[in-house]
Amino acid sequence: MAPLTPRLVVPIDVKKKPWEQKVRLHNRWHPDIPPVADVTEGELFRVEMVDWTGGRVRDDDSADDIKFLDLTITHYLSGPLRIVDAEGVPASPGDLLAVEICNLGPLPGDEWGYTGIFERENGGGFLTDHFPSARKAIWYFEGIYAYSPQIPGVRFPGLTHPGIVGTAPSVELLNIWNERERKLIETGHESLKLCEVLHQRPLANLPTSDNCLLGKIQEGTAEWQKIANEAARTIPGRENGGNCDIKNLSRGSKVYLPVFVEGANLSTGDMHFSQGDGEVSFCGAIEMSGFLELKCEIIRGGMKEYLTPVGPTALHVNPIFEIGPVEPRFSEWLVFEGISVDESGKQHFLDASVAYKRAVLNAIEYLSRFGYSKEQVYLLLSCCPCEGRISGIVDAPNAVATLAIPTAIFDQVSCNSPTNCFLDILKDVHFIYCCAFFHVLNKNRRTRL
Amino acid sequence: MAPLTPRLVVPIDVKKKPWEQKVRLHNRWHPDIPPVADVTEGELFRVEMVDWTGGRVRDDDSADDIKFLDLTITHYLSGPLRIVDAEGVPASPGDLLAVEICNLGPLPGDEWGYTGIFERENGGGFLTDHFPSARKAIWYFEGIYAYSPQIPGVRFPGLTHPGIVGTAPSVELLNIWNERERKLIETGHESLKLCEVLHQRPLANLPTSDNCLLGKIQEGTAEWQKIANEAARTIPGRENGGNCDIKNLSRGSKVYLPVFVEGANLSTGDMHFSQGDGEVSFCGAIEMSGFLELKCEIIRGGMKEYLTPVGPTALHVNPIFEIGPVEPRFSEWLVFEGISVDESGKQHFLDASVAYKRAVLNAIEYLSRFGYSKEQVYLLLSCCPCEGRISGIVDAPNAVATLAIPTAIFDQVSCNSPTNCFLDILKDVHFIYCCAFFHVLNKNRRTRL
Amino acid sequence: MAPLTPRLVVPIDVKKKPWEQKVRLHNRWHPDIPPVADVTEGELFRVEMVDWTGGRVRDDDSADDIKFLDLTITHYLSGPLRIVDAEGVPASPGDLLAVEICNLGPLPGDEWGYTGIFERENGGGFLTDHFPSARKAIWYFEGIYAYSPQIPGVRFPGLTHPGIVGTAPSVELLNIWNERERKLIETGHESLKLCEVLHQRPLANLPTSDNCLLGKIQEGTAEWQKIANEAARTIPGRENGGNCDIKNLSRGSKVYLPVFVEGANLSTGDMHFSQGDGEVSFCGAIEMSGFLELKCEIIRGGMKEYLTPVGPTALHVNPIFEIGPVEPRFSEWLVFEGISVDESGKQHFLDASVAYKRAVLNAIEYLSRFGYSKEQVYLLLSCCPCEGRISGIVDAPNAVATLAIPTAIFDQVSCNSPTNCFLDILKDVHFIYCCAFFHVLNKNRRTRL
Amino acid sequence: MAPLTPRLVVPIDVKKKPWEQKVRLHNRWHPDIPPVADVTEGELFRVEMVDWTGGRVRDDDSADDIKFLDLTITHYLSGPLRIVDAEGVPASPGDLLAVEICNLGPLPGDEWGYTGIFERENGGGFLTDHFPSARKAIWYFEGIYAYSPQIPGVRFPGLTHPGIVGTAPSVELLNIWNERERKLIETGHESLKLCEVLHQRPLANLPTSDNCLLGKIQEGTAEWQKIANEAARTIPGRENGGNCDIKNLSRGSKVYLPVFVEGANLSTGDMHFSQGDGEVSFCGAIEMSGFLELKCEIIRGGMKEYLTPVGPTALHVNPIFEIGPVEPRFSEWLVFEGISVDESGKQHFLDASVAYKRAVLNAIEYLSRFGYSKEQVYLLLSCCPCEGRISGIVDAPNAVATLAIPTAIFDQVSCNSPTNCFLDILKDVHFIYCCAFFHVLNKNRRTRL
Repeated sequence: MAPLTPRLVVPIDVKKKPWEQKVRLHNRWHPDIPPVADVTEGELFRVEMVDWTGGRVRDDDSADDIKFLDLTITHYLSGPLRIVDAEGVPASPGDLLAVEICNLGPLPGDEWGYTGIFERENGGGFLTDHFPSARKAIWYFEGIYAYSPQIPGVRFPGLTHPGIVGTAPSVELLNIWNERERKLIETGHESLKLCEVLHQRPLANLPTSDNCLLGKIQEGTAEWQKIANEAARTIPGRENGGNCDIKNLSRGSKVYLPVFVEGANLSTGDMHFSQGDGEVSFCGAIEMSGFLELKCEIIRGGMKEYLTPVGPTALHVNPIFEIGPVEPRFSEWLVFEGISVDESGKQHFLDASVAYKRAVLNAIEYLSRFGYSKEQVYLLLSCCPCEGRISGIVDAPNAVATLAIPTAIFDQVSCNSPTNCFLDILKDVHFIYCCAFFHVLNKNRRTRL
Repeated sequence: MAPLTPRLVVPIDVKKKPWEQKVRLHNRWHPDIPPVADVTEGELFRVEMVDWTGGRVRDDDSADDIKFLDLTITHYLSGPLRIVDAEGVPASPGDLLAVEICNLGPLPGDEWGYTGIFERENGGGFLTDHFPSARKAIWYFEGIYAYSPQIPGVRFPGLTHPGIVGTAPSVELLNIWNERERKLIETGHESLKLCEVLHQRPLANLPTSDNCLLGKIQEGTAEWQKIANEAARTIPGRENGGNCDIKNLSRGSKVYLPVFVEGANLSTGDMHFSQGDGEVSFCGAIEMSGFLELKCEIIRGGMKEYLTPVGPTALHVNPIFEIGPVEPRFSEWLVFEGISVDESGKQHFLDASVAYKRAVLNAIEYLSRFGYSKEQVYLLLSCCPCEGRISGIVDAPNAVATLAIPTAIFDQVSCNSPTNCFLDILKDVHFIYCCAFFHVLNKNRRTRL
Repeated sequence: MAPLTPRLVVPIDVKKKPWEQKVRLHNRWHPDIPPVADVTEGELFRVEMVDWTGGRVRDDDSADDIKFLDLTITHYLSGPLRIVDAEGVPASPGDLLAVEICNLGPLPGDEWGYTGIFERENGGGFLTDHFPSARKAIWYFEGIYAYSPQIPGVRFPGLTHPGIVGTAPSVELLNIWNERERKLIETGHESLKLCEVLHQRPLANLPTSDNCLLGKIQEGTAEWQKIANEAARTIPGRENGGNCDIKNLSRGSKVYLPVFVEGANLSTGDMHFSQGDGEVSFCGAIEMSGFLELKCEIIRGGMKEYLTPVGPTALHVNPIFEIGPVEPRFSEWLVFEGISVDESGKQHFLDASVAYKRAVLNAIEYLSRFGYSKEQVYLLLSCCPCEGRISGIVDAPNAVATLAIPTAIFDQVSCNSPTNCFLDILKDVHFIYCCAFFHVLNKNRRTRL
Repeated sequence: MAPLTPRLVVPIDVKKKPWEQKVRLHNRWHPDIPPVADVTEGELFRVEMVDWTGGRVRDDDSADDIKFLDLTITHYLSGPLRIVDAEGVPASPGDLLAVEICNLGPLPGDEWGYTGIFERENGGGFLTDHFPSARKAIWYFEGIYAYSPQIPGVRFPGLTHPGIVGTAPSVELLNIWNERERKLIETGHESLKLCEVLHQRPLANLPTSDNCLLGKIQEGTAEWQKIANEAARTIPGRENGGNCDIKNLSRGSKVYLPVFVEGANLSTGDMHFSQGDGEVSFCGAIEMSGFLELKCEIIRGGMKEYLTPVGPTALHVNPIFEIGPVEPRFSEWLVFEGISVDESGKQHFLDASVAYKRAVLNAIEYLSRFGYSKEQVYLLLSCCPCEGRISGIVDAPNAVATLAIPTAIFDQVSCNSPTNCFLDILKDVHFIYCCAFFHVLNKNRRTRL
């Protein structure tokens, strides 16, 4: 007989605040944040997580919580977990940690999420220059499916994944991060070309003790102060994985993370019920609390053997992963192209970010012709399983990016949902949704509308 | 009875030079290049094409042809075709031209292709700073499959597509192109941030009469000279489609192109047996001659109705397309991540091009550990059906890009191929082909068993 | 705000017997089994279920429980549920009940299952004449994956589904069932051609009060005795759905069931973590306890409108369903053919059952060459996601059936599992797992290299 | 340099009769039909084929050619080909012949096909008792797509394949075939249970010299007469492969055929542009002339090593195959269930043929509600890429079969086809077709209808 159920190593009570959880959370990357539990190689274990804001966004119709969200408080992580082998020897710097995501999902009793547009002056996003005001869509889950009262006519299966999976950095790596991000800020806006195009602010977030949560380490102590002054913020993905927001890191996938400190100190958080490539509105996935069921394997010496550094030190590496076998299957895709000419008509040089921005804008313009507001589409493209591809990156001066949208996300089922109040302004949209499927209900539904 | 066979409107004889073809080719975009044939809406027709260089690359082991290729001569296109409706009324500016790719493939008797790395001083590519020297791989086709003597152990089905499908620009649009690309060049290298990272040269290619081919218009005439001085070069994708190099524009897909001149003046060329997202080595697809079987539909007024301009004029639009139903099916993918920190360790701001460059470099380093040279992998990632995705574009300061490689392209069949001479130096690779789970654990596991 | 969590209408405590559950179960089809709860159209609700035997198979190495299983006790069902519309009006005979499977899975804390071969004299199976003795494989779940200590080298994602979803029959339909099944038995073995080939016994199971469980109706009462004497047994699928054992009725699928009695009286049970087409060993899926999250819609008059009867009465209909979007994705399939010539060499006439039997036998013979016992393969083909297709049914006298096995179910991961004790006798198998291209050429190629 | 183009070993001129072809065809299985060419292992070669009737079905609106087709004349095969290894040593009995289908398609200039229903008294089919009269649908090809003027509103990509791939039988195997099929006929209709259900006639076709074509062997000679008296007819699939009509034997697949005679003597024919599982109307695929590009490998001793006989002799084996990577991709399927209760209401015992018949009848009834005649649907389900699965084969007494139809075959494009004359009676169908796709044309089309 095998143990039948994954061991719960980090439980969450969504009615409590992040700092009140039984196993304390953290919201920084630092080697000295102490592990909350040991996990043995090969063992199936369960980690629960609050949503990235720790419950500060409400299930209601107002976007005020998004608008005034204190962005110094991101992201609440579960862990760190110290990974040991069968003999109890911990993972060591230079090893590779293979983390298989055996299962994941929302927390029972908390099956909902949200997608937001941040205010231009408070976070912004990929298209802040076009969409400067805060917005929010609430999503309810029906098993594998999500639907939103704010975006009627849409229902799709989630490609659920953790936005954040990462190992703790070593002191050396932490210094590299802090130094290069500080330089970016110091260089200033003038010299950064993309700033003309991408209005997101600030350029980077340096260490601060504001709202710093460090697990078991008591706030205000000397130890806390020291770590808080050094610890990296959680917004960008980095060498340790971290907030990579890769939508394909879903059920059955396996990520190979470099180990920088003894025990690996694995942390996870920022669960997404679904996300589109790019997560363009920034708070753009369907953000939720959730759980992961994981299995780890330590590959001794694997960093050296499999991850070649590309950069000035041996620490300049990136994780590798394998995609799992149960991603939602879509056959029909509508694809929007973009080239690296910006909205002012200016030619950029092989800039994939600019090209992708154009592709997203083109998609928004198109879909907004069918009854949606542009904000609705911006939210939708942030969180639905659309694919953002770098199609051409050598045909100077134009990079070509594409955004592919699975047409099956548009669904007639919501015709009968509480969103009926939208029917009048959405007549056109609904005509298409209602007709879009050749099945037994079609005739029936048509009559009713 | 229906006509059973597509009408051949542009025949190609691959033994002849581009300028000797029965239906003359062209290598520029300009409204005054005269149509070579009329095509009626709904009619199935066939267009044949030379490879983009017009036969200047040879089926041999030397990369000298790639090294010294005169890049002022690109790309030879078939067309333009004037599209008319059933009543003979041509497509008009403001219409949308739906082009369905019913079939495509190599030309019978010419079933081979090539992938090249351009010399740093003659074209370059996405990774020129890492791979400054010319290289070439020849690919032979066995029906749906391609294999290369230069890259043993690999065999994969083609996601065949035309690199170029486009309509003729109007004078107004042509002026916009020439002006914005001229400005880019004039702005100079200093102010272009990506130039630190992307060493490709030149930044853009302005009109020139050198090697200009304009279909029926006789070289040296006043008309020829005028057009040559104005006509856009073919390298970048632009508002008219053009050289978008989108790998998913394959069998059964349908592209909706804006119409800028009467008749639409549709041209095609640059057939690819296969290409990876980004076509990173620049001459990076499996380049070949080939044919398209197409069907057009004119959507009157469709530009206004479906393509919203994003830019200073009504002409700043991009095509839309639908993906076809017979793309090769892959289930297992090995994925490499990259963040927007460059090889010197410098932090860039949400730059997807830099992030994608890192992902590609990471993949090259990894695969080169299994017996391949880095040049072999660079060529392979240019032309195999790998996917380049913009995974995160908002987590400042790091964009995250991913490169996903289908593991099924690594095939043991070539163990018995004429490439046996490679066996000695490729012992390790061959072990892995036979083992086929081409991921980080293989070597590790092997030792343990 | 929407209700966030599905309403639990049938809870299960796996530590209790079926007849001890809080909401009483049943194991017969009859119109007079009283509903245990009302469910409203559009509501998301949760039904929990015991495994089909109600806990009589143990998580151990002995097949004795399978061997001596009392087969008069099948299958324990949850329900019936009375479905009403928003106004409280129940579904009526002649309506169609659309049941969407929003989610499903094993019960938390009970994440395991089993696959059995029944003894020839107690149940049998599709290949009983070849495999007359009882066997058992235990499967443990790691999230989406299952593995078995009894069948090492295999690990695959589940295509999880309920074996049984059905509505209650009317008296008229019940009579039809009982009469036609009684006739089958009376006709006797002599006249049934397939009996030469399919040795399963008995031919059908008529009503009996033995071990009859009827929900709230007290055993031994007159009402209980009357119903027990009439109620249909649960083994075959019939017009009401029932035990159809269709592996594709998984997450996100939607089944349209005919309604024969007021309220529809929906029952479900017999959860399968995974099953191959045909479920050939009879106890052949990975049998488990589990839960369903469902949503119902009543299509008034839908039976008449969408389900045309094929047979002597208006009740001779079958359900229709739509497949969901998250089935596991496999690309490589190894396919075995079978024709309708039986093992004695006798020619049968277009008999798909005989042809499929041959295909399954061919697959068993093939796979047993790689270190497995034939019983192991028989168990595996019963429960892994293999596809059984009727390829040709008109080329007299031979029907052609095919059995397609996804090669990705063979996984090297288990090399390091607790199954190491099998390594010695499975040396050959393990070589092949590591080599992973599990097809006829492997061994051959290996020798040559 | 490699040879770029497959060697053409059997050319076809579709304007000539089968017996007038340059390389003579044959329509029987016999070891003494002489090979028409040698093919070397590893070589890419091309075989062209007439349609199975040799051009006796016309591209017109009348089904008279189908009605009166002389069925003693089937199927015209190309070959036999003698397969030798690199040293010129032919394949030997006991070897396995791996045949890779590198490419295939219709013959250029002959891009059309037909689907027929045979007359009850002349061939019949799976549902002859329901559809006793001859019918014909003509299909025109637009690259990967087919459409039919007789079945408007449908257009789908072909899963193109050869109905027949086989090796020559040995004398011993031939005797086995003739004996067992003779016995079937002699046993008579009385004792064959399926005859109640499947009305196809005759039960089998024994050797006859009528219309016998034997390649180079001159008709009327003693040798011809001897072979004709012994040679097996081509209708059923058998141990050598033959007319298996497996729709998944498409581009990129690889079939492993047993070798019974020196040289293997490989023959192919009966090209299908598309076929549904079962090919239910008998002349049910989209029948066409066509070509195959093949590559062979001889696995010495492979029959013994990989194909275990199941039957009284070592020759009772069946081929194995691997599915190719470019099958059309469909995501949405509508599935019809059937159980083994026949149309009279009679209960059959685990009979998959009866269950599949019910599933097909259910699908015909359903689709005929949307404006199609039942004959149109019967033709459509014979030739479109629908899947017929044996879902449950153990739940006595009911086998459960399913027929899954990809909804994407219903296409709005034909709204503008010459089939407009059908629009009036097809209003309902067209409403759904026209609405079924969410793309730029929808609004446009809607207005026009």
